[in-house]
Amino acid sequence: MTKTHRSTCPINLSLEILGDRWSLLVLRDIMFGDIRTFRQLQARSIEGIATNILADRLARLVEAGLLTRRGDAVHKQKAIYSLTGMAIDLVPALALLAGWGGRHLPADPAFAARAQALEQGGPALWEAFMAELRHDHLGAEPPARSVRAQLDDIYVASLAAG
Amino acid sequence: MTKTHRSTCPINLSLEILGDRWSLLVLRDIMFGDIRTFRQLQARSIEGIATNILADRLARLVEAGLLTRRGDAVHKQKAIYSLTGMAIDLVPALALLAGWGGRHLPADPAFAARAQALEQGGPALWEAFMAELRHDHLGAEPPARSVRAQLDDIYVASLAAG
Repeated sequence: MTKTHRSTCPINLSLEILGDRWSLLVLRDIMFGDIRTFRQLQARSIEGIATNILADRLARLVEAGLLTRRGDAVHKQKAIYSLTGMAIDLVPALALLAGWGGRHLPADPAFAARAQALEQGGPALWEAFMAELRHDHLGAEPPARSVRAQLDDIYVASLAAG
Repeated sequence: MTKTHRSTCPINLSLEILGDRWSLLVLRDIMFGDIRTFRQLQARSIEGIATNILADRLARLVEAGLLTRRGDAVHKQKAIYSLTGMAIDLVPALALLAGWGGRHLPADPAFAARAQALEQGGPALWEAFMAELRHDHLGAEPPARSVRAQLDDIYVASLAAG
């Protein structure tokens, strides 16, 4: 980043990137909705984001290092957006913000229930979700098999051996 | 709230209140800096908030139920602002957002260290801080004595009995 900052407080620096009414909604749709193209982001926006605002926020998020864009020079609207590791690392903060909104604001009960589950799942659930996102967006190895699956393997191997 | 919302998604509803570059900074200064008056909020703002923006954000935060204002009809700038329970409940989300900013953005090392401590303290530290804020802002009972103090009491009582 080369632009000047209002201050070097971490909360301020975060708000310089995310402090508007739309950027986190765009990240939300990519993160939780697995929506990856401009056209789909616009078509499926429940808040009805305007074309020019969506284009502006996507460009800013790319510039800020939260998204990457794998372009299609001919069909601009078919470019695929991917979360970066920095964006994926926002999952815990977003989970708590969603939980807060679900508790204190007039959220739809089904949305609030989902937000509550995400908040209450805590670090274990957030890490599992982040591993999934790293797989889908960064091409990382798929998440390691669950503890339950590993225990099942041990059980089955033991039965076969026994 | 009587105004219409863009959607009933908890993240969207949160952003309708907090999604700008200043509101969370005002809350930060009241929460972490114990700065309670208009004049002090302006004088001690490291981001140099303008008078009209500060006045607007304080009024919005009161309207949204995040702050209360104990006025002084004669000296308007001497009114005392207090956090509500709803605002105090933002501590965990703010802790994670600060930690994220400290990790990924060019934060001052001392600020980043503080943010890291706040993040890594986790639910126990956040709850202790929230109890402190409830005492300072809501007139709640002071935080319960620490576990360490309770163990000390048991030890001293045991010595005296022994």
